[in-house]
Amino acid sequence: MAEIDLGVIDLGIGRPHHAVLPVAEISAASLRVAAGGSRDGLQYGPDPGMYDLRSLLAHFLSAQYGLEVRSQELVMTYGASHALDLVLGRYTQPGDTVLVEDPTYFFALDVLRGRGVRPIPVAMDQQGIVPDDLRQQLRTHSPRLLYTVPTFHNPTGIVHTSARRQEVVALTKEHDCWIVADEVYHLLCDGTRPKPLRAYSADNVLSISSFSKILAPGLRLGWVEAAPRHIDQLLQCGVFRSGGAASPYVSSIVEEVITLGDLDRVLIGLRTFYADRMRGVVAALRHELPAEVTFEDPGGGFFLWLRAPATVDFEHLRDRARDMGVDYRAGSLFSCHGSFANCLRICCTYYSEQETREGIVRLGQFLRRTFS
Amino acid sequence: MAEIDLGVIDLGIGRPHHAVLPVAEISAASLRVAAGGSRDGLQYGPDPGMYDLRSLLAHFLSAQYGLEVRSQELVMTYGASHALDLVLGRYTQPGDTVLVEDPTYFFALDVLRGRGVRPIPVAMDQQGIVPDDLRQQLRTHSPRLLYTVPTFHNPTGIVHTSARRQEVVALTKEHDCWIVADEVYHLLCDGTRPKPLRAYSADNVLSISSFSKILAPGLRLGWVEAAPRHIDQLLQCGVFRSGGAASPYVSSIVEEVITLGDLDRVLIGLRTFYADRMRGVVAALRHELPAEVTFEDPGGGFFLWLRAPATVDFEHLRDRARDMGVDYRAGSLFSCHGSFANCLRICCTYYSEQETREGIVRLGQFLRRTFS
Repeated sequence: MAEIDLGVIDLGIGRPHHAVLPVAEISAASLRVAAGGSRDGLQYGPDPGMYDLRSLLAHFLSAQYGLEVRSQELVMTYGASHALDLVLGRYTQPGDTVLVEDPTYFFALDVLRGRGVRPIPVAMDQQGIVPDDLRQQLRTHSPRLLYTVPTFHNPTGIVHTSARRQEVVALTKEHDCWIVADEVYHLLCDGTRPKPLRAYSADNVLSISSFSKILAPGLRLGWVEAAPRHIDQLLQCGVFRSGGAASPYVSSIVEEVITLGDLDRVLIGLRTFYADRMRGVVAALRHELPAEVTFEDPGGGFFLWLRAPATVDFEHLRDRARDMGVDYRAGSLFSCHGSFANCLRICCTYYSEQETREGIVRLGQFLRRTFS
Repeated sequence: MAEIDLGVIDLGIGRPHHAVLPVAEISAASLRVAAGGSRDGLQYGPDPGMYDLRSLLAHFLSAQYGLEVRSQELVMTYGASHALDLVLGRYTQPGDTVLVEDPTYFFALDVLRGRGVRPIPVAMDQQGIVPDDLRQQLRTHSPRLLYTVPTFHNPTGIVHTSARRQEVVALTKEHDCWIVADEVYHLLCDGTRPKPLRAYSADNVLSISSFSKILAPGLRLGWVEAAPRHIDQLLQCGVFRSGGAASPYVSSIVEEVITLGDLDRVLIGLRTFYADRMRGVVAALRHELPAEVTFEDPGGGFFLWLRAPATVDFEHLRDRARDMGVDYRAGSLFSCHGSFANCLRICCTYYSEQETREGIVRLGQFLRRTFS
């Protein structure tokens, strides 16, 4: 194992492994675009995105979700974070409150703060958002939006149950609060999982997603899927009206990937890859972790959430972990009030299988020393 | 000419003609990227943009501008409008005032309004921004920013003189007001023109530009060029921190275009194309327009600004023009207070030479009837 070293193995990095990036499929699609000689991908495109791509994507999502998605319910963006920023720009004013899960995706907090809105945490448990706390926060703050990651939640990895999805949608509707569902990991789960959040309320939910996790992050192409009245609102955004469609050239490539059936094939491969990877990581953690540190098996996705006794501060301990050749993201990063200092997030996907296992061995050594 | 018809020839459309879109060069670059088999363009990239692209772009701009541009002064964006939105997001609060030229690019007004800032008009003449009025507005409003299009101004087509550039920079500096210089048309002018605005003050000016006008709009790749302290500010934006570099895949293609020397070659071709086109349009207008309608020859770029007596309202007259087979953008669209109703903007670049000439013939018929 000496040749693995890699200095500090940073299990905090939330990216796909380079081996799953579909270089052959993207190259094949690019060659077809080049051979076709069309200029469509080089000109400005229609504001909601290239027509053919939206139509192909609607068809693809309908089949995957088992739920009709129409192309007029889609607007293309430069990824899911850009989609979130766009929704905030149209639907919030600085000073507004937006509910977020506690813990939540830390960069989403950055996007919220960039728009001057105030994130208010809502409690979670193993089933998803806690309804009683949601009701309380809705009453107290009358928020405009709730931001949630219902499937393979970032950072905890959990999949919100169907019952909770139903309750959360019903409660937010009662309080005229819209939901922004960050569903970038949804397609990495198999058909036995709950449906995307718009299945529970097509009108109340804006789903944001992207090709980053199902094809390649470097394409920087995502979308908002929402009722046409929401799409119309988003298209008022000056950046679209001036620049036109998000990435016509990249769109022309992704159109070919979908047309050739490669998106379906890539996705089947990714599901197996990530499920296998998670199984391996869970087995390794069970072997390496001291009894003081617990976790739930998410069954897939990118992330695992480790819990230690309440006295621990993992941000404070990072230097020691790095000295032992491993890093992670401390739980406090994912909370707007700095909670979860005794938790940490690891990502199972960025390194090779062997490197990840070595990272977990080091994490186990670090944690055993911490609790010895 | 009967086969030209095309219904209504919309001289308002501000886009390049499809014939100048460099499909061969982009295809060649794409083939090299595909053949190289690198996964770099498929992964998340560094927040300011792909390193090689920024380095190649810095070198390219330094040579073109005759002015040192360093890669750490560049952050890649999804086009110039996205760059403007990004700058506004970091440097303004809703309710702030931003000075704009009167008239100004109408979609920039949309981007400003999307950020909740109040545009305040500053008078222009044939040399650029009028210093006395600028001084007055700076004193009255203490604005954070001035948005300007110094070269081939949109909509008037004029190139701000060097003397005016100097005065505008000096005045804004005195009042701690930064300048956002929208220089997307700058590289379409030849070396006899004044230098880009950062040549007059590297620290006070944030230059925004893109590959849209010098390569292809569909790439959706632009940049901010500014002092490193401004770049550091912009990189705090959550969308970058979450999504990483703007368009790694498109960047890998543009890197090849620059490396192959094709960007230089394309640009030389474009300058000739647009200068020829403008000469033809100016000659046609001199032949077709009634004496009541006047204009200045910008000598290049995309746009021409036509002025009629003050009693005319061109927005009101658009239906009549369309009935005669031609359209334009009414001047009032470019003013935050609805001024310039007696002016109109035409773009010389979207249609073929013959189609553009036919459009001008129809415009002449419409205007002659209006003033008969």
